[in-house]
Amino acid sequence: MGGNTTNGFDRPAYSDEETRVMLYFRQLAEACGLAHRFDTCGNLIIETTSISGQWIETGSHVDTVPGGGNYDGLAGVVAGFEALKAIRHYNRPFKHGLRLRIWRGEESASFGIASIGSRAAFGQLPPSSLSMTCRGKTMAEAMTAQGINPEVVEQGRPAIATDELDNIAACIELHIEQGKVLETAQLDIGIVSAIRGSRRSWVSLTGTFDHSGATPMGCHYRQDCNLAMAYMHVRLDQLLQKHIEKGVDLVQTVGVINSHSGMHKKLAIDNNAVSKVSGAAFFSFEVRGCKAEEVTAYCAQAEAEICKTADEFGIRSDIEIFSEQQGLATLDETLQHCMEQLCDSLKLSHMLMPSGAWHDAGTVAQQRRADGSSIPVGIIFIPCKEGISHSPLESTSPEQIATGATLLAATMLQLAMQD
Amino acid sequence: MGGNTTNGFDRPAYSDEETRVMLYFRQLAEACGLAHRFDTCGNLIIETTSISGQWIETGSHVDTVPGGGNYDGLAGVVAGFEALKAIRHYNRPFKHGLRLRIWRGEESASFGIASIGSRAAFGQLPPSSLSMTCRGKTMAEAMTAQGINPEVVEQGRPAIATDELDNIAACIELHIEQGKVLETAQLDIGIVSAIRGSRRSWVSLTGTFDHSGATPMGCHYRQDCNLAMAYMHVRLDQLLQKHIEKGVDLVQTVGVINSHSGMHKKLAIDNNAVSKVSGAAFFSFEVRGCKAEEVTAYCAQAEAEICKTADEFGIRSDIEIFSEQQGLATLDETLQHCMEQLCDSLKLSHMLMPSGAWHDAGTVAQQRRADGSSIPVGIIFIPCKEGISHSPLESTSPEQIATGATLLAATMLQLAMQD
Repeated sequence: MGGNTTNGFDRPAYSDEETRVMLYFRQLAEACGLAHRFDTCGNLIIETTSISGQWIETGSHVDTVPGGGNYDGLAGVVAGFEALKAIRHYNRPFKHGLRLRIWRGEESASFGIASIGSRAAFGQLPPSSLSMTCRGKTMAEAMTAQGINPEVVEQGRPAIATDELDNIAACIELHIEQGKVLETAQLDIGIVSAIRGSRRSWVSLTGTFDHSGATPMGCHYRQDCNLAMAYMHVRLDQLLQKHIEKGVDLVQTVGVINSHSGMHKKLAIDNNAVSKVSGAAFFSFEVRGCKAEEVTAYCAQAEAEICKTADEFGIRSDIEIFSEQQGLATLDETLQHCMEQLCDSLKLSHMLMPSGAWHDAGTVAQQRRADGSSIPVGIIFIPCKEGISHSPLESTSPEQIATGATLLAATMLQLAMQD
Repeated sequence: MGGNTTNGFDRPAYSDEETRVMLYFRQLAEACGLAHRFDTCGNLIIETTSISGQWIETGSHVDTVPGGGNYDGLAGVVAGFEALKAIRHYNRPFKHGLRLRIWRGEESASFGIASIGSRAAFGQLPPSSLSMTCRGKTMAEAMTAQGINPEVVEQGRPAIATDELDNIAACIELHIEQGKVLETAQLDIGIVSAIRGSRRSWVSLTGTFDHSGATPMGCHYRQDCNLAMAYMHVRLDQLLQKHIEKGVDLVQTVGVINSHSGMHKKLAIDNNAVSKVSGAAFFSFEVRGCKAEEVTAYCAQAEAEICKTADEFGIRSDIEIFSEQQGLATLDETLQHCMEQLCDSLKLSHMLMPSGAWHDAGTVAQQRRADGSSIPVGIIFIPCKEGISHSPLESTSPEQIATGATLLAATMLQLAMQD
């Protein structure tokens, strides 16, 4: 729904397309006798009954980035639904109920904010988000159009009240890896140990435009932004390599250089020319890591390297951090251990790995119960073809989804029978 | 005319603004009794009489780049006119006449072709140039609007016939340096020894777009175009430094990266994003040198370095040469020596230096007389403020122009009295 595998799928947060997918799952739930309800933020809940009042949960999202794939999020929803369907009649006494949450709007591509549905459900979506726009509608208007009252966000009223939160015994999300680590290692399953946070900056450089033929080489004559930038990127790459050799888990990316962003207008990028020494340049600089203190310490060194290089070339550098999201240094280790043992029993090859992207389960892991404890959270990764995601080419085979769903069902089953 | 010092000047080739400046000089010539005429290509000639039938010439242009300065070209025309006015009544017998040529359209910014007026005058402007456009007019239309019959270009008919060419005894152009070598060295005069040619390419890189959080570092996982490009630029810089240490005179510039050019449409540059490993990149690569064989030999090494680096990063590189102009390895050494001696007599500090940019005098130096000999050509550089050119900030003081004009007049005078 909302697209096809040639041009990709368009299911923004709080869109008709997203709702249609949710209604499809509600219909499936109805057909097989599972209970269902929408929460006040428009997330769909499908569940069995619970003897103890406690719940083993799973959940993922059904929205997509524009022209995205059909597996990011949806694979976890399908696997979760199949897990519930498969194990609900299992012939052993269940202690806890089984619950699937189908979250709204996990992708930041819609309104510039990630995990809208899950953050709203826990009362943690900033009210200012309501004025962000997508497809010409504010988030408030988009919610209203789907029959949801935006006042719950306005007032910070959680859809998941304290007692409901206290009774979530554990939560496991299945998701495609969105990278090629599993495919490269030819493994069935990734058990996520931590989630990388990110720190994103714009680095802008200001030098001097000069005639490329009449200006001799060397920093004495040229304050060349493009060349200084190249030295910065190579030095940052070498700096990170040193950290990785010491065992620090960080990735860094210069995704955008000199093109298509607001920075373009602020700087005289269009004055660069084939026959001119470059007087202006900019680039995006992203560092991701699970441990906030490692990200912070590394960024301090990286920024010092940028400034030192700018000084060397006689140019000015400005660094503007525009987004910062803390990672989760560890997910629940008992759950990881449990899933590793189940993989071994099920003869599934597996590895522990960090998640490079944020997921709804991360939002669940950030919550605290009334007694201050956190909810044990686990994430199961399944491989995706060539690591491609957020693209019409995104692909995971039915067998790979079924393998992941089997582990998800086995884990939920085991947890549901425990005290 | 055609602008001001705040927003710059706009006098394209074969425009009303260019013509107005020429008519102004014709009026000045008329007022002081100098002969004048337009040639069939619309260049203005101002001259004394000649006893021998031979001529000592000077010349430069009055057109500008869009939003350009008022000194690039015009300084040489003013200095040439003042030189003629000052020395025509000098109380010694002249052997040769004095002639100023005010060339049309030297800047390639108008129609994408440099030295239009001088190349047309020597019958060397390709007829295909006539269909190039500027301000919505073809060159043929622009010429016609200025009362010039484009058939002369169509048919390759020179405005300067063989006997006129044979009788050019020497040619000296004064021009602003368009660089900051003289200002930095605090010298009055640059005597140009050679003109740098240029070779310009687009280098395009194709890698793989990947999730910046989920893709580990290293070429095994990332085919990162932006990072590969940084390594290329640093390695090219280091390669050139080695050549310069060996005494090779070359400059190289990466002026444009990932923005505003036709390449932008050919590649998926807009698919780069802050949170993606870069799958596409491109840059302009310009090498300039006086000696064609040095440029060719260096470019072969540079291109090998680009390909080697692309291979290392697992990306594809394509190099497309889009412009190539040979330099002039030497200008007339006797003339250079004569000007050095005159500088010493006039107490002007000076140095020999290559010209980074092409000038009309270069076109004159490329001509051959009926006997196969070339016209002795000299170029005098005067400093310009901070080396800035092609900008409203372009500036040279009246004193600096007068100093250069004095040397120009002294050189023309000495040559005019020689056999």
